[in-house]
Amino acid sequence: VSRSLKVAVVGATGAVGQALISILDSRKFPVAELLPFASKRSVGREISFQGRTSICRVLTPGCFDNVDLAFFDASDAVSQEWVPQAILSGAWVVDNSAAFRMDPKVPLVVPEVNGSHLTESDRLLAGPNCSTVQLVVALKSLSDRWGLKRVVVSTYKITRGAGIEAMAELSSQTLARLSGQAADSKAFVHPIAFNCIPQIGSFKNDYTGEETKIMEESRKILGLPELKITATAIRVPTLHCHGESVNVECMTPFKISDVRQAWTEQAGLVIQDDPSSSVYPMGIDAVGKDYVGVGRIRRDESVDNGLNFWVVSDNLRKGAALNAVQIGESVLQWIQAKPKKI
Amino acid sequence: VSRSLKVAVVGATGAVGQALISILDSRKFPVAELLPFASKRSVGREISFQGRTSICRVLTPGCFDNVDLAFFDASDAVSQEWVPQAILSGAWVVDNSAAFRMDPKVPLVVPEVNGSHLTESDRLLAGPNCSTVQLVVALKSLSDRWGLKRVVVSTYKITRGAGIEAMAELSSQTLARLSGQAADSKAFVHPIAFNCIPQIGSFKNDYTGEETKIMEESRKILGLPELKITATAIRVPTLHCHGESVNVECMTPFKISDVRQAWTEQAGLVIQDDPSSSVYPMGIDAVGKDYVGVGRIRRDESVDNGLNFWVVSDNLRKGAALNAVQIGESVLQWIQAKPKKI
Repeated sequence: VSRSLKVAVVGATGAVGQALISILDSRKFPVAELLPFASKRSVGREISFQGRTSICRVLTPGCFDNVDLAFFDASDAVSQEWVPQAILSGAWVVDNSAAFRMDPKVPLVVPEVNGSHLTESDRLLAGPNCSTVQLVVALKSLSDRWGLKRVVVSTYKITRGAGIEAMAELSSQTLARLSGQAADSKAFVHPIAFNCIPQIGSFKNDYTGEETKIMEESRKILGLPELKITATAIRVPTLHCHGESVNVECMTPFKISDVRQAWTEQAGLVIQDDPSSSVYPMGIDAVGKDYVGVGRIRRDESVDNGLNFWVVSDNLRKGAALNAVQIGESVLQWIQAKPKKI
Repeated sequence: VSRSLKVAVVGATGAVGQALISILDSRKFPVAELLPFASKRSVGREISFQGRTSICRVLTPGCFDNVDLAFFDASDAVSQEWVPQAILSGAWVVDNSAAFRMDPKVPLVVPEVNGSHLTESDRLLAGPNCSTVQLVVALKSLSDRWGLKRVVVSTYKITRGAGIEAMAELSSQTLARLSGQAADSKAFVHPIAFNCIPQIGSFKNDYTGEETKIMEESRKILGLPELKITATAIRVPTLHCHGESVNVECMTPFKISDVRQAWTEQAGLVIQDDPSSSVYPMGIDAVGKDYVGVGRIRRDESVDNGLNFWVVSDNLRKGAALNAVQIGESVLQWIQAKPKKI
């Protein structure tokens, strides 16, 4: 049984929303009708999809009627207000905001890591922070095989993660700096051109929102509520893909060759690790790709069962839009397995 | 007794050499005569210093005759060949190359950390890798007071650290990228514009030269040959100052307030840590400054006695030239304490 779905995309004109619509197309997701939603300033904007044009509209009561599947790629506030309405209308929801991620009743999903736990009764499925996704894809195999005693992660997060305006600001500030002029900062509290900013999100205690998300979401997705993990999140002046320097203490001894083998078998992960040829994951290579790249794989001799590695992934794809579509593909299976509503 | 010295600067036209000459001036180092040495292509270039002009020359046998103090800011190969000759000529040498750093007979010096161990019989004094300097200035107080059980560091190293050509390449590549053009990579094996490169130096086993330097040099400077430390060094597309995300396990329990107090008393270190006002160390603030800035100070709950922090320093100043001049100031004291040669 195969049927096409009525699919809503909330935040259709944002960077993630646009990537999501493109990925729905390239993965041949069976969309009968696409309903793009956006903020007031984008109302009326045309979205091309599979040869047809859809017009962006604002969210209104009843707008999710007959929608099978709604992707939310907008703010936490939008999700908080409108996700419950989409569910009441009978839709499945894949929410990429942080609004429901840590709700114990809501699965937080990276399909390759914990997708097999999902059931059809999960109407609301949350996608994690982009930095979390690429981390847990790499940690999963280590956790399964050797156990995770402790994880220390430092992130190299791109400017684009803060939105299209932030990206434009990086470009304009960079041009200004190169020509010796001053440039205002609007998207960030500090200039980002040729600078690293050790703050992503607002502070909760002494950790930033981003750091807290990485720690809490990793525990939830890996099913390890007591996982010892600490994170430092740094914004760097790049345009595509996040990097993460990861240090892991495993519970039990491993061989590096076995780690490589385990990662070779891990869906969603690609090993890029040939130091002698200067091969390792980099943002300029990973942009537009679906994988999480792992490299610089080496034993950390400073602790028992220690491992260092470097992961890079396209934050818009596996970090957000692709991951959401992959979750949507689970929903698709459930819907297609059911007799069609009359 | 005060007397002025005949001072040689090898690598006088390089970024570190130029910063060093400027710092000798601003710290009123008593220079009777400045001898700038450079490679062939810079021969004849004029160096202004304290109102006089010196002409760059190449190194030749006997060129260090009557030199009191020689700073080397050139390649490892130049130091390997010429440092011994400078010492045979009777000069004290401060060498910023890696040529002699790990020689057990040569002190590797960050004055605020281990400068008190120096004696007049130390004719050759090495300055560490720039990434090492800012790390050990922060680790010193922790080591003294609570002991270091283990250190995990990830670096955010600027492009300039790879030389003036690398900096120019970052600028030209960045402009090309912003205007949608391709750009060649010469200074690095991969493009650096808007990219992070997880390789600095060539690989030794699975660690890069840079990572090995950070680990080995930190052990030597802190006087902890068995220190458990691991490093990941990443090149980021910035122009000024290195950043480092540092995770430390101390041997004994600490209060964060005591860590702050210890760092307040640490020479060379400045605490910049007020998250509520978005105050933390950043390269755009630290450029041209003499301090190592430390911020994002917070307990790491993933391990006993765990601490996370972020350090930033100007790689040309405390990371290289300033540190060398400070070492030179020790030599100055020894020389001034002696009766003048006849």
